Amino acid sequence: MAETSDDLITALRAELPGEAVVTDPDRLTSYQHDMATFCPYGTPAAVVLARSTEHVQHVLRVASRLGVPVVPQGSRTGLSGGANAIDGCVVLSLEKMAAIREIDAPNRIAVVEPGVLNSTLSAAVAEHGLFYPPDPSSWEISTLGGNVATNAGGLCCVKYGVTADFVRGLEVVLADGEVLRTGRRTAKGVAGYDLTRLFVGSEGTLGVVTEVTLALRPTGREPRTVAGLFPTVAQAGDAVARVVAAGLVPSLLEFMDQTSLRACNDHLNMGMPDNAAAMLIAQSDADPDRAVADIGAISAIFTEAGGFDVVEADDLAEGELLLAARRNSHYALEALGTGLTDDVCVPLTRLADYIHRVEKVAAEADLTIATVGHAGDGNLHPSVIFDESDADQVRRANWAFDEIMRIGLEMGGTVTGEHGIGVLKRDWLARELGPVGERVHRDLKRLFDPAGILNPGKVLSA
Amino acid sequence: MAETSDDLITALRAELPGEAVVTDPDRLTSYQHDMATFCPYGTPAAVVLARSTEHVQHVLRVASRLGVPVVPQGSRTGLSGGANAIDGCVVLSLEKMAAIREIDAPNRIAVVEPGVLNSTLSAAVAEHGLFYPPDPSSWEISTLGGNVATNAGGLCCVKYGVTADFVRGLEVVLADGEVLRTGRRTAKGVAGYDLTRLFVGSEGTLGVVTEVTLALRPTGREPRTVAGLFPTVAQAGDAVARVVAAGLVPSLLEFMDQTSLRACNDHLNMGMPDNAAAMLIAQSDADPDRAVADIGAISAIFTEAGGFDVVEADDLAEGELLLAARRNSHYALEALGTGLTDDVCVPLTRLADYIHRVEKVAAEADLTIATVGHAGDGNLHPSVIFDESDADQVRRANWAFDEIMRIGLEMGGTVTGEHGIGVLKRDWLARELGPVGERVHRDLKRLFDPAGILNPGKVLSA
Repeated sequence: MAETSDDLITALRAELPGEAVVTDPDRLTSYQHDMATFCPYGTPAAVVLARSTEHVQHVLRVASRLGVPVVPQGSRTGLSGGANAIDGCVVLSLEKMAAIREIDAPNRIAVVEPGVLNSTLSAAVAEHGLFYPPDPSSWEISTLGGNVATNAGGLCCVKYGVTADFVRGLEVVLADGEVLRTGRRTAKGVAGYDLTRLFVGSEGTLGVVTEVTLALRPTGREPRTVAGLFPTVAQAGDAVARVVAAGLVPSLLEFMDQTSLRACNDHLNMGMPDNAAAMLIAQSDADPDRAVADIGAISAIFTEAGGFDVVEADDLAEGELLLAARRNSHYALEALGTGLTDDVCVPLTRLADYIHRVEKVAAEADLTIATVGHAGDGNLHPSVIFDESDADQVRRANWAFDEIMRIGLEMGGTVTGEHGIGVLKRDWLARELGPVGERVHRDLKRLFDPAGILNPGKVLSA
Repeated sequence: MAETSDDLITALRAELPGEAVVTDPDRLTSYQHDMATFCPYGTPAAVVLARSTEHVQHVLRVASRLGVPVVPQGSRTGLSGGANAIDGCVVLSLEKMAAIREIDAPNRIAVVEPGVLNSTLSAAVAEHGLFYPPDPSSWEISTLGGNVATNAGGLCCVKYGVTADFVRGLEVVLADGEVLRTGRRTAKGVAGYDLTRLFVGSEGTLGVVTEVTLALRPTGREPRTVAGLFPTVAQAGDAVARVVAAGLVPSLLEFMDQTSLRACNDHLNMGMPDNAAAMLIAQSDADPDRAVADIGAISAIFTEAGGFDVVEADDLAEGELLLAARRNSHYALEALGTGLTDDVCVPLTRLADYIHRVEKVAAEADLTIATVGHAGDGNLHPSVIFDESDADQVRRANWAFDEIMRIGLEMGGTVTGEHGIGVLKRDWLARELGPVGERVHRDLKRLFDPAGILNPGKVLSA
């Protein structure tokens, strides 16, 4: 093993600058895993801090020759262990490939390296009156390459869609080190198979993305906000269904259950009444007149559906105050114990029903489950809270986590709306795909990665 | 050959109802080709009118066993020969699989068989206050399966996107007869590789689609329309760029050049002035106030850019009158001679430049080229007009057709914005993809169709 590792390091250094190949054990530990709970990870033999497509090509050629696994990494904010290191692997960090290569404002596209932060691009295009919508909760610290690898979602999806909807083209280094260009720069194009979409969301298992061409939109208006509390989850779910049925298109429509509300209330001293079973928050970034009308209509629906303390924000600052609870729910829940965050998407009409089933799972597991989510998309994040030092709680937490997915599938949903499969949900992916779907996935994996060096054990079990 | 064909017919009939297998030579001729010009086609050994997924499975199993090519077909409105028969093949017609299986209005989805006409679905969902945006020019007579196979576009794309943007999931019969389900019913989902997008636009070369789950939208408002004439193409191109730069999002933004305008003027007796070099037509289906404001803004931009006779329509009927020329351009051009219609998409800012280059090609080829297109997407349809009985004109027309694509690629565009590759543009696809891209395409084709029975010779040369 030591000898193999020496060969590997020597081969890597042969064509990479000295500082690009990290082998110092202390530094290696910080590249071991992303933010997922309970996902196994190992220790890399080396971390390569790639600065160019050529660096990535060299790493993949060496890894192919020596049969060493390569784990591509952004800023490790993922929630499924997709970027977790494997013992003896090369972690291929794209963080230093962080140049915005081009902003073509008249054609509304940007060309970026994978290590550019979502927030950096957002700030850069704002100067051109443009807007890059996908906004995962990690947007301030996550890389666009990571967003592409997981096909990240966010709060904006209900109106604007997910990362894939904004990716026009890619440069991808294949397992053998060859460079593939996919897609196009133009608004439309149907030349050949859609390889771009095949790589988006493939979590580094089919190739390594070294450049992304992204579509941009004109900046939206300052959003108008409404929040309302509900005596029951059923009433909140009914309100969501009514908003959709009315043909309203909010730019954000979020849900919080009682547990998450109370946790945020405590965490942020918000002084909210604690008798609410749920809260909904909606925004519209349409033209001012339309936003006022739409938020007014949503406000009326909240009230008709049984909501109370329905408040419209007069300005952006007040709107952000209403949203603060939702934006901070992750941190507020951390105070309650270890959280195992799920990511199920169900048909809109099953929303309330689904949340009730999750409540039953919590009762049966005798654990707290706090649910927040992107209600307008039916995409919920139930977090199972438990004490990591209590083996029985850990067992029950894992059971509950699985039940949450099982029920989601049963209701016609999917086991991941936006976080991806990683190592966390490999078995559940197989269940969702069925045998033919799994076979096709494995065939595709083998086609692009015959030696099995590209992030092996992620998405599909090795 | 005759014996093989007898074996084939016998094997097909073994598990299909008698009327499903057509072998009458007179009837076979009507299944030979789509609407493309100059695309070779052969005579099928049989046409199977499939009525179920099981029928499709049987055809593919038989074809796999006997090594017979299968050409899937909708209503043959394609423009690239993608549905053209091959001598001795089985044409697998999906026209009789024409049931709308489900309209789930609260969740805004429809589940359809591939033979449902685009117009049939549009009418059915309108009763639920819903709207299926993709509107290829053939929408009244083209099937949704065909739209999926070619990833069809249309006039709405500038605001709503193409067919792929509305496909949530598919049922696909693979070459070996197995049934694959891809995608999901939910608004979001990132479980595994995006197989749905891999099949959309693959023109029947990777599998046969037998069911489509489509996303729907709330019905838009009655559109407001403006049309304007321009003394030069450059001014029209400038107007398009200005509309985009202003952040306006029309629901339609179409271009016609002088040749197509004059042809329509003659064809429809429209009495338009014939001194215009170009016409632009824009619509907005936003809220009435917003539509009035946006169409007013676009109207002002048309005038500032040098447009004349800029007219806003007061109502839908008047708007349709303004659009009539564009909608009928295909028929008007038919009166001039045989047309070879191209489908290039260029970056928006190159629009005027591109049209000028096409004009130069026309002069050099000494042929008429009429250009219309979806200006808001940079997607243009130059039609080379020629006399099919004149060998030299045919030669020059083919040269011009190729030049139109070559220049598009040179400007950073694509050789097909929405019509697909079929047999017409296989060589150009290879040029656009480059060697690595072509290799990956061929690897994928071989993976899904190892015996080469699925629409062989389409997209990729056999």
